[in-house]
Amino acid sequence: MMTMNHNAGPGLHAEAGTAAGLPVAPSRALWAPLGLADVTIDGGFWGDRQAVNATAMIPHVDHWLEKLRWTSNFDRAVDGTVAGDRAGREFSDSEIYKLLEGMAWEIGRTGDAALEARFAEIAARVEAAQEADGYLNTQFGREGQRPRYSDFEWGHELYCFGHLIQAGVARARTAGLDDAFVQMVIRAADHVCREFGADGRQDIPGHPEIETALVELFRVTGQQKYLDQATLFIDRRGHGHLGVIDFGQQYFQDNVPVRQATVFDGHAVRALYLAAGAADLAVETGDSALHEAVVGQTLTTLARRTYLTGGMGAHHEGESFGEDYELPPDRSYSETCAGIASVMLNHRLLMQTGDARHADAIERTLFNIVATSPAADGKGFYYTNVLQQRVEGLMPDPDEPSFRAAAAERPPFFAVSCCPTNLTRTFATLGAYIATHDGEGVQVHQYAPATIRASLASGDVTVRMTTSYPDAGRIEVTVAEAAPGPWTLTLRIPSWAVATSAGSGATLTTADGQTRQVAPGYVSTPGPVAPGASVVLDLPVAARWTYADPRIDAVRGQVAVERGPVVMALESVDLGADVATARVRTDAPPVDDGHTVQVPVTVVDQDDDGWPYGGYRPGQTQAQRLVSLIPYHSWAERGPSTMRIFIPEERA
Amino acid sequence: MMTMNHNAGPGLHAEAGTAAGLPVAPSRALWAPLGLADVTIDGGFWGDRQAVNATAMIPHVDHWLEKLRWTSNFDRAVDGTVAGDRAGREFSDSEIYKLLEGMAWEIGRTGDAALEARFAEIAARVEAAQEADGYLNTQFGREGQRPRYSDFEWGHELYCFGHLIQAGVARARTAGLDDAFVQMVIRAADHVCREFGADGRQDIPGHPEIETALVELFRVTGQQKYLDQATLFIDRRGHGHLGVIDFGQQYFQDNVPVRQATVFDGHAVRALYLAAGAADLAVETGDSALHEAVVGQTLTTLARRTYLTGGMGAHHEGESFGEDYELPPDRSYSETCAGIASVMLNHRLLMQTGDARHADAIERTLFNIVATSPAADGKGFYYTNVLQQRVEGLMPDPDEPSFRAAAAERPPFFAVSCCPTNLTRTFATLGAYIATHDGEGVQVHQYAPATIRASLASGDVTVRMTTSYPDAGRIEVTVAEAAPGPWTLTLRIPSWAVATSAGSGATLTTADGQTRQVAPGYVSTPGPVAPGASVVLDLPVAARWTYADPRIDAVRGQVAVERGPVVMALESVDLGADVATARVRTDAPPVDDGHTVQVPVTVVDQDDDGWPYGGYRPGQTQAQRLVSLIPYHSWAERGPSTMRIFIPEERA
Repeated sequence: MMTMNHNAGPGLHAEAGTAAGLPVAPSRALWAPLGLADVTIDGGFWGDRQAVNATAMIPHVDHWLEKLRWTSNFDRAVDGTVAGDRAGREFSDSEIYKLLEGMAWEIGRTGDAALEARFAEIAARVEAAQEADGYLNTQFGREGQRPRYSDFEWGHELYCFGHLIQAGVARARTAGLDDAFVQMVIRAADHVCREFGADGRQDIPGHPEIETALVELFRVTGQQKYLDQATLFIDRRGHGHLGVIDFGQQYFQDNVPVRQATVFDGHAVRALYLAAGAADLAVETGDSALHEAVVGQTLTTLARRTYLTGGMGAHHEGESFGEDYELPPDRSYSETCAGIASVMLNHRLLMQTGDARHADAIERTLFNIVATSPAADGKGFYYTNVLQQRVEGLMPDPDEPSFRAAAAERPPFFAVSCCPTNLTRTFATLGAYIATHDGEGVQVHQYAPATIRASLASGDVTVRMTTSYPDAGRIEVTVAEAAPGPWTLTLRIPSWAVATSAGSGATLTTADGQTRQVAPGYVSTPGPVAPGASVVLDLPVAARWTYADPRIDAVRGQVAVERGPVVMALESVDLGADVATARVRTDAPPVDDGHTVQVPVTVVDQDDDGWPYGGYRPGQTQAQRLVSLIPYHSWAERGPSTMRIFIPEERA
Repeated sequence: MMTMNHNAGPGLHAEAGTAAGLPVAPSRALWAPLGLADVTIDGGFWGDRQAVNATAMIPHVDHWLEKLRWTSNFDRAVDGTVAGDRAGREFSDSEIYKLLEGMAWEIGRTGDAALEARFAEIAARVEAAQEADGYLNTQFGREGQRPRYSDFEWGHELYCFGHLIQAGVARARTAGLDDAFVQMVIRAADHVCREFGADGRQDIPGHPEIETALVELFRVTGQQKYLDQATLFIDRRGHGHLGVIDFGQQYFQDNVPVRQATVFDGHAVRALYLAAGAADLAVETGDSALHEAVVGQTLTTLARRTYLTGGMGAHHEGESFGEDYELPPDRSYSETCAGIASVMLNHRLLMQTGDARHADAIERTLFNIVATSPAADGKGFYYTNVLQQRVEGLMPDPDEPSFRAAAAERPPFFAVSCCPTNLTRTFATLGAYIATHDGEGVQVHQYAPATIRASLASGDVTVRMTTSYPDAGRIEVTVAEAAPGPWTLTLRIPSWAVATSAGSGATLTTADGQTRQVAPGYVSTPGPVAPGASVVLDLPVAARWTYADPRIDAVRGQVAVERGPVVMALESVDLGADVATARVRTDAPPVDDGHTVQVPVTVVDQDDDGWPYGGYRPGQTQAQRLVSLIPYHSWAERGPSTMRIFIPEERA
């Protein structure tokens, strides 16, 4: 069914039309999206981060893109000097596009006039570099540069076009199709369709990204040619078209057609963007086989190739997925962008399937990857998100872009800096993950203080969520506005919200005052809910022990602590020793007073330092004591430390 | 003390002079080397492999170097066509040099006339490509190529010179200094000294190798300039001279001076070759601080950054060492060349220190890396040596060079193929690791059926070792020839040869028929041993359980089996199931009847296939049964399989 949003938000122009403020807008869905026009996050965990994004992260990223002269590559393309003077890597144009996308959503969300002016300035500089036929890339095609489309494996031209188109889609959905930037993007997309259409070049991009962008541009414009072009890019892939590389063809998913793959493989961000595009395409073409393939790949990947944090991509080499159950915590790559791409993919699948596993994956990834990458002040980032830090890292240089290895604190920017710009667009669009509607009712997937508006068959509905989640598990949903007709409020019960030795499971108190136990999945309130009525969901967020499937060898004999959706971590700052020495006792649940989580820890000193293999060596143990854990997303904010999520368990 | 070998072996020309047949010849040593002229391996585990090297591996490698047109790069350099038609990677010249080195040692060992003819043919083709000033490299300096010395980070010019010089040293020590190839190599080395001397270019090679080669050339020629040049290369390194790369400056050990490093870091082969060169340099210059630094780095690396197999280099990315205790078995890189380099380094340190830990490391690495890489037929190789194979690999293409990822069986050759040529020179020189002398006696370090000759102060001594080691632990050393004066026979007791629940420790039965317990380290027989007399060492090779230091998180809760120096492995072929399902009981020692090793295994089926984290999941167990293990070095000879060395332990 179609989404029909009539309320324009603060920065949303009325001419943005249907799908205004929707980060992704499938023309058909079991549950249709509610976007920036429909959902407002009112402070709390995510509201605070949206504010940091607006006030600090976007300006910080903008500053670094200028400082590193990646933005001014467009100026130099115009004045003819870029060939000998281009800054940044081959994909740096895309960072400017991702920032523009983030700005566009943020302008749509808040109507910030200063940001609008800055957007217009950058957009004009980009547009000035566009060539007459719509082509736009600062590193190819000029005298002294390589020719256009001469390096599909590594050149990233179509990847950059993809992010440009996504920025254009964001602008179209917040400022309307007539916007100059949108029109420029359409010229660029038309160039791609002419160049790579059925009768054109039969190539595919080394880095998927443009597929989802083209489907979204089809959704915005209604132009079939963009959908057709996305189909061509998806169908051409998987036949070994790209050149043979050391990482193997699976690096860019060119080893097996999308419809035949059973799990994600190769470069994680490439695989997940491709899957998001395939999921979008399946919706618009009604290709149920393609849809089922992507769903199967996603669920298998969640079962076998995903970290406790929701992070994806085990290998540093090739930034790729590992084999099933190969999930080392210390060499976890778990790139921030892969987490973001997983959220994008699972959001698409959730809308089509109504399967709570996708909402669970989104929640897990948001709290433990998307919230972990940026520093609290929004001016530093982790590119990789390790689950175990073995050595105290070095403090990053505040004035130089870092390489990717884990530093003691979050570096300000990177030589390859896809993640910071990706975060700006993600934080600006967080509202879209909160809820959906299906004409008959509203489904709430993520819990945050928020206002949700939807136009249902029975009339307009507005509900307000009040909660300090995830600190506390109580979520109160109050109906602020509702026509008298029937509608249904549906709430997600996270998979972890079950009875454990630490406490009972989730309960729901309906408007009639009845309280009942509710099981993981979705629960719907019976009948219409009148204005002023409240529903209260209580989720058991108290800290609990979490074990890994024994096939995940790398954390055998270890145990983690989760508190609600938040993965906890032990940091040396709290232990007062290297976390390598910690052993935890699990006889009783973790101690959780609602503010602090503590676990009983024994510190074990190993005898140094000869050949490390032989008879069993239990080590010398010190007395047991209670040690505080911290949320993983807030680790490395107190200087150099060692850290681990999975802690060796001391056997009785 | 100086080594003084007067006996020329089968292929050793008398004019090879002192140090004839010695793969490394320090001018001073606590224990001096005995080389190809002094030690003959008479069949058995290593003798068989030397034969395979001679009859199969060297011809196979030679064939592939021609097939891939890496050898004929030299011909094309001569005819002027190489610029547009060069085959192979930037270091491919070095493969021809390593093959020549292997051939030179093999000719020295056996006097094989056909091999001598082939050596001369290839050597002539290489020499023809040398330029007038001594420079020699097929990828730089010609029209259409990059200029000489324009890429120290990745160009590998000095690395290639290093291997060329090592081939020249091998030829000099087996055919004499007047050999044409040796003279060509000297011209090349003189070019390097002119170009990079104290007043020349202040650069260093991105890949260390030439340092040890130059010291060895000094030893062969007595020319101080080569030693001085090695000193310059060592002293210049560690100051960030090379360009900044993604892997970090530690990749090529340019982050910290050699004398200040405390452990090996960065690219493992680079680090170990550099250390071998530094160790050589320290001997010749009497630089005890440098010597102590390398010893400390080596012992710390053995204690914290070495696999049970002796393998080094945990990371695929950058082929580098991991952090302390970061030793994942499934993503072990453990490159064959790093194992070979570790053997070279530990051999050097053993001669200087008499510390049995270095001999232990050599034994472990020879049996579990050097013996593991090549296929039984000598026509396939593992580049990386994983300790856990999670999925059945694909069969390698028999006609194409492979990439490095673990295949189901050993690929015939690689696109980057440093390991096969490195193995040819290693197998040809195995005899050098067996024993040393110190003028007063003979020290036996490695056990194999062999004949050892040494010229001692008391006169010439010849001893014969008879053993089926490592299958059995009995080693009989019989004196075949000895002057009547006093001399000492010293035998190494491996560190694993201690009493365990599986049996008692090592015993020594001296010529007088007395048997006594002997502890790990070195044991010397009292007084002179007369011709005809025998000493018998019994080592407890029966299979034993081996645990890892608890700081090696990746194998926590798992246990390995070793039999003598041989690491055992569980392969799915024997289990009849994926080795991921195996749990082993360790209540009793492994069952070892002298031919077969078996362990009690329970197969555990895990419930598929949802989110893999939550409550503890013990799985469904099947009945316990005995399953055979195989020596790790013989895994993957029976088709696709999964394999693991460390097996999860079933708790009682």
